[in-house]
Amino acid sequence: MNIGIIGAGHVGGTLGRRWSAGNHTVTFGIRGEPDEQLRQYMDTSGGAARATTPIEAARGAEVVVLATPWKETHDAVQQLGDLSGKIVIDCTNPFKPGLTGLDVPADSSGAAQVASWAPGSRVVKAFNTTGFNIMANPKFADGAAAMFYCGDDVPAKRVVDALATELGFAPVDAGPLTVARQLESLGLLWVGLAIGSDLGREIAFRLLRRPPVQ
Amino acid sequence: MNIGIIGAGHVGGTLGRRWSAGNHTVTFGIRGEPDEQLRQYMDTSGGAARATTPIEAARGAEVVVLATPWKETHDAVQQLGDLSGKIVIDCTNPFKPGLTGLDVPADSSGAAQVASWAPGSRVVKAFNTTGFNIMANPKFADGAAAMFYCGDDVPAKRVVDALATELGFAPVDAGPLTVARQLESLGLLWVGLAIGSDLGREIAFRLLRRPPVQ
Repeated sequence: MNIGIIGAGHVGGTLGRRWSAGNHTVTFGIRGEPDEQLRQYMDTSGGAARATTPIEAARGAEVVVLATPWKETHDAVQQLGDLSGKIVIDCTNPFKPGLTGLDVPADSSGAAQVASWAPGSRVVKAFNTTGFNIMANPKFADGAAAMFYCGDDVPAKRVVDALATELGFAPVDAGPLTVARQLESLGLLWVGLAIGSDLGREIAFRLLRRPPVQ
Repeated sequence: MNIGIIGAGHVGGTLGRRWSAGNHTVTFGIRGEPDEQLRQYMDTSGGAARATTPIEAARGAEVVVLATPWKETHDAVQQLGDLSGKIVIDCTNPFKPGLTGLDVPADSSGAAQVASWAPGSRVVKAFNTTGFNIMANPKFADGAAAMFYCGDDVPAKRVVDALATELGFAPVDAGPLTVARQLESLGLLWVGLAIGSDLGREIAFRLLRRPPVQ
Protein backbone atom coordinates (compact mmCIF):
# COMPACT_ATOMS: atom_id res chain seq x y z
CA MET A 1 0.00 0.00 0.00
CA ASN A 2 0.98 3.63 -0.33
CA ILE A 3 1.22 4.97 3.20
CA GLY A 4 1.70 8.64 3.96
CA ILE A 5 2.97 9.43 7.44
CA ILE A 6 2.35 12.90 8.81
CA GLY A 7 4.64 13.73 11.71
CA ALA A 8 8.00 12.04 11.69
CA GLY A 9 8.85 11.75 15.37
CA HIS A 10 9.55 8.43 17.01
CA VAL A 11 6.04 7.02 16.48
CA GLY A 12 5.75 8.03 12.82
CA GLY A 13 9.38 7.18 12.16
CA THR A 14 9.10 3.72 13.69
CA LEU A 15 5.85 2.86 11.93
CA GLY A 16 7.20 4.13 8.60
CA ARG A 17 10.48 2.27 8.93
CA ARG A 18 8.75 -0.99 9.71
CA TRP A 19 6.03 -0.78 7.06
CA SER A 20 8.51 0.20 4.39
CA ALA A 21 10.66 -2.79 5.36
CA GLY A 22 7.50 -4.84 4.83
CA ASN A 23 7.18 -3.78 1.20
CA HIS A 24 4.78 -0.91 1.59
CA THR A 25 5.60 2.40 -0.06
CA VAL A 26 6.04 4.90 2.74
CA THR A 27 6.21 8.65 2.30
CA PHE A 28 6.88 10.95 5.23
CA GLY A 29 5.12 14.28 5.00
CA ILE A 30 7.29 16.91 6.66
CA ARG A 31 7.96 20.60 6.51
CA GLY A 32 11.50 21.44 5.45
CA GLU A 33 14.35 18.97 5.29
CA PRO A 34 14.48 15.65 7.18
CA ASP A 35 16.25 15.98 10.51
CA GLU A 36 18.91 13.58 11.73
CA GLN A 37 16.39 11.34 13.48
CA LEU A 38 14.18 10.96 10.42
CA ARG A 39 17.25 10.32 8.24
CA GLN A 40 18.12 7.43 10.56
CA TYR A 41 14.62 5.98 10.28
CA MET A 42 14.76 6.27 6.49
CA ASP A 43 18.26 4.81 6.32
CA THR A 44 17.16 1.74 8.28
CA SER A 45 14.00 1.27 6.24
CA GLY A 46 15.80 -0.40 3.37
CA GLY A 47 15.54 2.70 1.24
CA ALA A 48 11.84 2.31 0.60
CA ALA A 49 10.80 5.41 2.53
CA ARG A 50 11.16 8.95 1.28
CA ALA A 51 10.21 12.41 2.53
CA THR A 52 8.21 15.12 0.85
CA THR A 53 5.70 17.82 1.81
CA PRO A 54 2.66 16.82 3.87
CA ILE A 55 0.21 17.53 1.06
CA GLU A 56 2.26 15.49 -1.41
CA ALA A 57 2.57 12.62 1.06
CA ALA A 58 -1.19 12.58 1.56
CA ARG A 59 -2.06 12.98 -2.11
CA GLY A 60 -0.46 9.73 -3.18
CA ALA A 61 -1.49 7.74 -0.14
CA GLU A 62 -4.29 5.24 0.35
CA VAL A 63 -3.55 5.33 4.08
CA VAL A 64 -2.68 8.57 5.88
CA VAL A 65 -1.14 8.14 9.33
CA LEU A 66 -1.41 11.04 11.76
CA ALA A 67 1.51 10.86 14.17
CA THR A 68 1.68 14.51 15.12
CA PRO A 69 1.77 16.08 18.57
CA TRP A 70 -1.87 16.72 19.45
CA LYS A 71 -1.48 20.51 19.47
CA GLU A 72 -0.27 20.44 15.85
CA THR A 73 -2.82 17.95 14.59
CA HIS A 74 -5.58 20.37 13.61
CA ASP A 75 -3.25 22.49 11.49
CA ALA A 76 -1.61 19.41 10.03
CA VAL A 77 -4.94 17.96 8.90
CA GLN A 78 -5.98 21.30 7.41
CA GLN A 79 -2.83 21.30 5.29
CA LEU A 80 -3.37 17.86 3.79
CA GLY A 81 -6.02 18.83 1.26
CA ASP A 82 -8.96 16.58 0.49
CA LEU A 83 -8.78 13.34 2.47
CA SER A 84 -12.18 12.01 1.47
CA GLY A 85 -12.16 8.29 0.78
CA LYS A 86 -8.75 7.83 2.34
CA ILE A 87 -8.09 5.75 5.42
CA VAL A 88 -6.81 8.04 8.17
CA ILE A 89 -5.10 6.28 11.07
CA ASP A 90 -5.17 8.59 14.06
CA CYS A 91 -2.24 7.77 16.36
CA THR A 92 -2.46 11.00 18.30
CA ASN A 93 -3.22 11.42 21.99
CA PRO A 94 -4.89 14.61 23.21
CA PHE A 95 -3.18 14.68 26.59
CA LYS A 96 -3.46 17.71 28.79
CA PRO A 97 -0.21 19.31 29.97
CA GLY A 98 1.02 17.39 32.99
CA LEU A 99 -0.85 14.29 31.80
CA THR A 100 -3.82 15.21 33.98
CA GLY A 101 -6.44 14.04 31.52
CA LEU A 102 -7.68 14.39 27.96
CA ASP A 103 -7.80 17.83 26.35
CA VAL A 104 -11.08 17.27 24.53
CA PRO A 105 -14.69 17.52 25.79
CA ALA A 106 -15.83 14.54 27.87
CA ASP A 107 -18.29 13.42 25.19
CA SER A 108 -15.69 13.61 22.43
CA SER A 109 -12.20 12.33 21.61
CA GLY A 110 -9.20 13.32 19.56
CA ALA A 111 -10.32 10.88 16.89
CA ALA A 112 -13.82 12.38 16.77
CA GLN A 113 -12.26 15.79 16.25
CA VAL A 114 -9.96 14.47 13.53
CA ALA A 115 -12.99 12.97 11.80
CA SER A 116 -14.73 16.35 11.92
CA TRP A 117 -11.65 18.04 10.41
CA ALA A 118 -11.38 15.52 7.56
CA PRO A 119 -14.93 15.03 6.26
CA GLY A 120 -15.42 11.95 4.14
CA SER A 121 -12.26 10.30 5.36
CA ARG A 122 -12.32 6.89 7.00
CA VAL A 123 -10.85 7.45 10.45
CA VAL A 124 -9.50 4.58 12.51
CA LYS A 125 -8.01 5.19 15.94
CA ALA A 126 -4.95 2.99 16.43
CA PHE A 127 -1.30 2.93 17.46
CA ASN A 128 -1.95 5.29 20.39
CA THR A 129 -2.00 2.88 23.34
CA THR A 130 1.66 1.98 23.51
CA GLY A 131 5.10 3.51 22.91
CA PHE A 132 7.24 3.64 19.79
CA ASN A 133 9.61 1.17 21.43
CA ILE A 134 6.80 -1.40 21.50
CA MET A 135 5.89 -0.56 17.90
CA ALA A 136 9.49 -1.40 17.03
CA ASN A 137 9.03 -4.84 18.60
CA PRO A 138 5.62 -5.91 19.95
CA LYS A 139 6.77 -9.43 20.86
CA PHE A 140 7.17 -10.37 24.51
CA ALA A 141 8.15 -13.71 25.98
CA ASP A 142 4.56 -14.39 26.99
CA GLY A 143 2.80 -13.13 23.88
CA ALA A 144 2.33 -10.22 21.53
CA ALA A 145 1.19 -6.79 22.64
CA ALA A 146 -2.40 -5.92 21.79
CA MET A 147 -3.12 -3.18 19.29
CA PHE A 148 -6.56 -1.84 20.06
CA TYR A 149 -8.28 0.04 17.27
CA CYS A 150 -11.74 1.43 16.67
CA GLY A 151 -13.66 3.11 13.90
CA ASP A 152 -16.93 3.23 12.02
CA ASP A 153 -15.65 2.02 8.63
CA VAL A 154 -15.33 -1.76 8.72
CA PRO A 155 -13.20 -2.21 5.56
CA ALA A 156 -10.83 0.51 6.82
CA LYS A 157 -10.54 -1.33 10.14
CA ARG A 158 -9.62 -4.52 8.27
CA VAL A 159 -6.71 -2.68 6.64
CA VAL A 160 -5.53 -1.38 10.01
CA ASP A 161 -5.89 -4.84 11.51
CA ALA A 162 -3.62 -6.22 8.78
CA LEU A 163 -1.07 -3.41 9.19
CA ALA A 164 -0.92 -4.07 12.95
CA THR A 165 -0.58 -7.80 12.39
CA GLU A 166 2.33 -7.22 9.99
CA LEU A 167 4.19 -5.41 12.77
CA GLY A 168 3.67 -8.33 15.14
CA PHE A 169 0.82 -6.96 17.21
CA ALA A 170 -2.24 -8.93 18.28
CA PRO A 171 -4.94 -6.61 16.88
CA VAL A 172 -8.19 -6.05 18.79
CA ASP A 173 -11.23 -4.43 17.19
CA ALA A 174 -12.59 -2.35 20.07
CA GLY A 175 -15.72 -1.18 18.27
CA PRO A 176 -17.00 2.08 16.78
CA LEU A 177 -15.13 5.38 16.75
CA THR A 178 -16.86 6.47 19.98
CA VAL A 179 -14.56 3.99 21.76
CA ALA A 180 -11.61 6.25 20.85
CA ARG A 181 -12.24 8.08 24.12
CA GLN A 182 -11.37 4.90 26.02
CA LEU A 183 -8.38 4.15 23.80
CA GLU A 184 -6.99 7.66 24.38
CA SER A 185 -7.50 7.14 28.10
CA LEU A 186 -5.67 3.83 27.73
CA GLY A 187 -2.83 5.70 26.04
CA LEU A 188 -2.69 7.97 29.05
CA LEU A 189 -2.59 4.94 31.36
CA TRP A 190 0.32 3.51 29.35
CA VAL A 191 2.30 6.75 29.56
CA GLY A 192 1.58 7.07 33.27
CA LEU A 193 2.86 3.55 33.90
CA ALA A 194 5.85 4.01 31.57
CA ILE A 195 7.12 7.25 33.05
CA GLY A 196 5.40 7.44 36.44
CA SER A 197 6.14 4.01 37.87
CA ASP A 198 9.27 1.93 38.12
CA LEU A 199 8.08 -0.36 35.33
CA GLY A 200 9.66 1.71 32.56
CA ARG A 201 8.73 1.84 28.90
CA GLU A 202 9.11 -1.85 28.05
CA ILE A 203 5.50 -2.60 28.93
CA ALA A 204 2.42 -3.24 26.84
CA PHE A 205 -1.18 -4.25 27.24
CA ARG A 206 -2.30 -7.65 26.04
CA LEU A 207 -5.82 -9.01 25.80
CA LEU A 208 -6.09 -12.50 27.26
CA ARG A 209 -8.83 -14.72 25.83
CA ARG A 210 -10.26 -18.13 26.60
CA PRO A 211 -13.27 -20.09 25.38
CA PRO A 212 -16.70 -19.18 26.72
CA VAL A 213 -17.83 -21.01 29.84
CA GLN A 214 -20.63 -23.45 29.00
CA MET B 1 -8.44 -9.76 57.65
CA ASN B 2 -11.96 -8.69 58.37
CA ILE B 3 -13.46 -7.70 55.04
CA GLY B 4 -16.86 -6.05 54.76
CA ILE B 5 -18.46 -6.23 51.33
CA ILE B 6 -21.14 -3.69 50.50
CA GLY B 7 -23.28 -4.75 47.58
CA ALA B 8 -23.69 -8.47 47.12
CA GLY B 9 -24.17 -8.83 43.37
CA HIS B 10 -21.89 -10.96 41.24
CA VAL B 11 -18.77 -8.84 41.86
CA GLY B 12 -19.19 -8.55 45.62
CA GLY B 13 -20.39 -12.15 45.88
CA THR B 14 -17.45 -13.53 43.93
CA LEU B 15 -14.83 -11.50 45.80
CA GLY B 16 -16.40 -12.42 49.15
CA ARG B 17 -16.63 -16.11 48.33
CA ARG B 18 -13.02 -16.28 47.23
CA TRP B 19 -11.55 -14.24 50.09
CA SER B 20 -13.52 -16.18 52.69
CA ALA B 21 -12.25 -19.43 51.14
CA GLY B 22 -8.77 -17.93 51.64
CA ASN B 23 -9.21 -17.59 55.41
CA HIS B 24 -10.35 -14.01 55.58
CA THR B 25 -13.46 -13.17 57.59
CA VAL B 26 -15.99 -11.84 55.12
CA THR B 27 -19.19 -10.05 56.06
CA PHE B 28 -21.68 -9.00 53.42
CA GLY B 29 -23.51 -5.79 54.22
CA ILE B 30 -27.01 -6.00 52.79
CA ARG B 31 -30.46 -4.60 53.37
CA GLY B 32 -33.00 -7.28 54.28
CA GLU B 33 -32.47 -11.00 53.89
CA PRO B 34 -29.90 -12.60 51.56
CA ASP B 35 -31.37 -13.46 48.16
CA GLU B 36 -30.86 -16.81 46.45
CA GLN B 37 -27.76 -15.63 44.60
CA LEU B 38 -26.03 -14.41 47.75
CA ARG B 39 -27.00 -17.61 49.57
CA GLN B 40 -25.22 -19.55 46.85
CA TYR B 41 -22.10 -17.44 47.18
CA MET B 42 -22.14 -17.89 50.95
CA ASP B 43 -22.80 -21.64 50.66
CA THR B 44 -19.78 -22.08 48.40
CA SER B 45 -17.53 -19.97 50.60
CA GLY B 46 -16.88 -22.75 53.04
CA GLY B 47 -19.17 -21.19 55.60
CA ALA B 48 -16.79 -18.37 56.46
CA ALA B 49 -18.96 -15.60 55.03
CA ARG B 50 -22.02 -14.18 56.71
CA ALA B 51 -24.50 -11.40 56.04
CA THR B 52 -25.58 -8.49 58.21
CA THR B 53 -26.55 -4.85 57.82
CA PRO B 54 -24.22 -2.55 55.88
CA ILE B 55 -23.28 -0.49 58.94
CA GLU B 56 -22.51 -3.64 60.94
CA ALA B 57 -20.45 -5.08 58.10
CA ALA B 58 -18.42 -1.88 57.87
CA ARG B 59 -18.02 -1.44 61.62
CA GLY B 60 -16.09 -4.66 62.12
CA ALA B 61 -14.09 -4.43 58.93
CA GLU B 62 -10.51 -3.35 58.32
CA VAL B 63 -11.25 -3.40 54.59
CA VAL B 64 -14.57 -2.18 53.19
CA VAL B 65 -15.29 -3.22 49.61
CA LEU B 66 -17.75 -1.11 47.62
CA ALA B 67 -19.36 -3.33 44.99
CA THR B 68 -22.58 -1.42 44.52
CA PRO B 69 -24.20 -0.18 41.32
CA TRP B 70 -22.83 3.32 40.82
CA LYS B 71 -26.21 5.00 41.27
CA GLU B 72 -26.54 3.45 44.75
CA THR B 73 -22.99 4.11 45.86
CA HIS B 74 -23.46 7.56 47.37
CA ASP B 75 -26.34 6.44 49.58
CA ALA B 76 -24.53 3.23 50.46
CA VAL B 77 -21.43 5.11 51.65
CA GLN B 78 -23.57 7.54 53.63
CA GLN B 79 -25.12 4.62 55.50
CA LEU B 80 -21.83 3.04 56.55
CA GLY B 81 -21.01 5.42 59.37
CA ASP B 82 -17.49 6.58 60.08
CA LEU B 83 -15.02 4.98 57.68
CA SER B 84 -11.99 6.99 58.73
CA GLY B 85 -8.84 4.91 58.93
CA LYS B 86 -10.41 2.02 57.05
CA ILE B 87 -9.23 0.80 53.67
CA VAL B 88 -12.05 1.32 51.17
CA ILE B 89 -11.71 -0.64 47.94
CA ASP B 90 -13.83 1.05 45.30
CA CYS B 91 -14.90 -1.52 42.70
CA THR B 92 -17.64 0.64 41.23
CA ASN B 93 -17.84 2.00 37.71
CA PRO B 94 -19.70 5.26 37.07
CA PHE B 95 -20.92 4.32 33.60
CA LYS B 96 -23.48 6.45 31.85
CA PRO B 97 -26.67 4.74 30.68
CA GLY B 98 -25.96 3.11 27.33
CA LEU B 99 -22.27 2.87 28.23
CA THR B 100 -21.59 6.15 26.42
CA GLY B 101 -19.00 7.41 28.90
CA LEU B 102 -18.36 8.12 32.55
CA ASP B 103 -21.06 9.81 34.61
CA VAL B 104 -18.68 12.02 36.59
CA PRO B 105 -17.02 15.33 35.65
CA ALA B 106 -14.06 15.01 33.27
CA ASP B 107 -11.60 16.11 35.95
CA SER B 108 -12.97 13.66 38.52
CA SER B 109 -13.72 9.95 38.89
CA GLY B 110 -16.01 7.68 40.81
CA ALA B 111 -13.17 6.97 43.21
CA ALA B 112 -12.53 10.67 43.80
CA GLN B 113 -16.18 11.09 44.66
CA VAL B 114 -16.13 8.10 46.98
CA ALA B 115 -13.10 9.62 48.72
CA SER B 116 -15.01 12.87 49.21
CA TRP B 117 -17.99 10.97 50.68
CA ALA B 118 -15.80 9.02 53.12
CA PRO B 119 -13.39 11.54 54.61
CA GLY B 120 -10.38 10.04 56.34
CA SER B 121 -10.81 6.68 54.67
CA ARG B 122 -8.02 5.17 52.60
CA VAL B 123 -9.54 4.71 49.16
CA VAL B 124 -8.01 2.35 46.62
CA LYS B 125 -9.57 1.89 43.21
CA ALA B 126 -9.43 -1.77 42.20
CA PHE B 127 -11.42 -4.72 40.87
CA ASN B 128 -13.26 -2.53 38.37
CA THR B 129 -11.43 -3.35 35.13
CA THR B 130 -12.68 -6.87 34.57
CA GLY B 131 -15.77 -9.03 35.10
CA PHE B 132 -16.81 -11.17 38.04
CA ASN B 133 -16.15 -14.25 35.90
CA ILE B 134 -12.48 -13.25 35.70
CA MET B 135 -12.43 -12.53 39.44
CA ALA B 136 -13.61 -16.13 39.91
CA ASN B 137 -10.58 -17.33 37.92
CA PRO B 138 -7.96 -14.85 36.71
CA LYS B 139 -5.69 -17.53 35.24
CA PHE B 140 -5.39 -17.87 31.48
CA ALA B 141 -3.24 -20.27 29.49
CA ASP B 142 -0.80 -17.46 28.68
CA GLY B 143 -0.67 -15.76 32.05
CA ALA B 144 -2.68 -14.15 34.82
CA ALA B 145 -5.02 -11.24 34.26
CA ALA B 146 -3.75 -7.90 35.50
CA MET B 147 -5.46 -6.18 38.39
CA PHE B 148 -4.76 -2.48 38.07
CA TYR B 149 -5.20 -0.43 41.21
CA CYS B 150 -4.45 3.13 42.27
CA GLY B 151 -4.63 5.24 45.37
CA ASP B 152 -2.82 7.78 47.50
CA ASP B 153 -2.26 5.60 50.59
CA VAL B 154 0.73 3.35 49.96
CA PRO B 155 0.17 0.90 52.85
CA ALA B 156 -3.47 0.53 51.81
CA LYS B 157 -2.33 -0.24 48.26
CA ARG B 158 -0.03 -2.95 49.59
CA VAL B 159 -3.02 -4.63 51.24
CA VAL B 160 -5.00 -4.48 47.99
CA ASP B 161 -2.00 -5.80 46.07
CA ALA B 162 -1.87 -8.81 48.40
CA LEU B 163 -5.63 -9.39 48.19
CA ALA B 164 -5.44 -9.35 44.37
CA THR B 165 -2.46 -11.70 44.39
CA GLU B 166 -4.36 -14.15 46.61
CA LEU B 167 -7.07 -14.36 43.97
CA GLY B 168 -4.51 -15.16 41.28
CA PHE B 169 -4.27 -11.76 39.63
CA ALA B 170 -1.04 -10.09 38.54
CA PRO B 171 -1.43 -6.79 40.44
CA VAL B 172 -0.27 -3.52 38.87
CA ASP B 173 0.13 -0.33 40.90
CA ALA B 174 -1.09 2.30 38.45
CA GLY B 175 -0.24 5.29 40.63
CA PRO B 176 -2.17 7.89 42.63
CA LEU B 177 -5.95 8.07 42.98
CA THR B 178 -6.16 10.53 40.06
CA VAL B 179 -5.46 7.54 37.80
CA ALA B 180 -8.88 6.15 38.78
CA ARG B 181 -10.32 8.08 35.85
CA GLN B 182 -8.27 5.94 33.46
CA LEU B 183 -9.09 2.73 35.33
CA GLU B 184 -12.81 3.49 35.13
CA SER B 185 -12.39 4.16 31.43
CA LEU B 186 -10.58 0.83 31.20
CA GLY B 187 -13.56 -0.80 32.92
CA LEU B 188 -15.76 0.71 30.24
CA LEU B 189 -13.45 -0.67 27.54
CA TRP B 190 -13.68 -4.13 29.10
CA VAL B 191 -17.48 -4.05 29.19
CA GLY B 192 -17.63 -2.77 25.63
CA LEU B 193 -15.43 -5.62 24.44
CA ALA B 194 -17.26 -8.20 26.56
CA ILE B 195 -20.77 -7.35 25.45
CA GLY B 196 -20.26 -5.33 22.26
CA SER B 197 -17.88 -7.58 20.33
CA ASP B 198 -17.86 -11.27 19.56
CA LEU B 199 -15.09 -11.86 22.09
CA GLY B 200 -17.46 -12.48 24.98
CA ARG B 201 -16.79 -12.12 28.69
CA GLU B 202 -13.84 -14.51 29.00
CA ILE B 203 -11.32 -11.77 28.29
CA ALA B 204 -8.97 -9.81 30.50
CA PHE B 205 -6.19 -7.26 30.25
CA ARG B 206 -2.67 -8.30 31.04
CA LEU B 207 0.40 -6.10 31.37
CA LEU B 208 3.36 -7.52 29.47
CA ARG B 209 6.82 -6.58 30.77
CA ARG B 210 10.38 -7.09 29.66
CA PRO B 211 13.73 -5.76 30.82
CA PRO B 212 14.75 -2.23 29.89
CA VAL B 213 16.65 -1.83 26.63
CA GLN B 214 20.26 -0.88 27.35
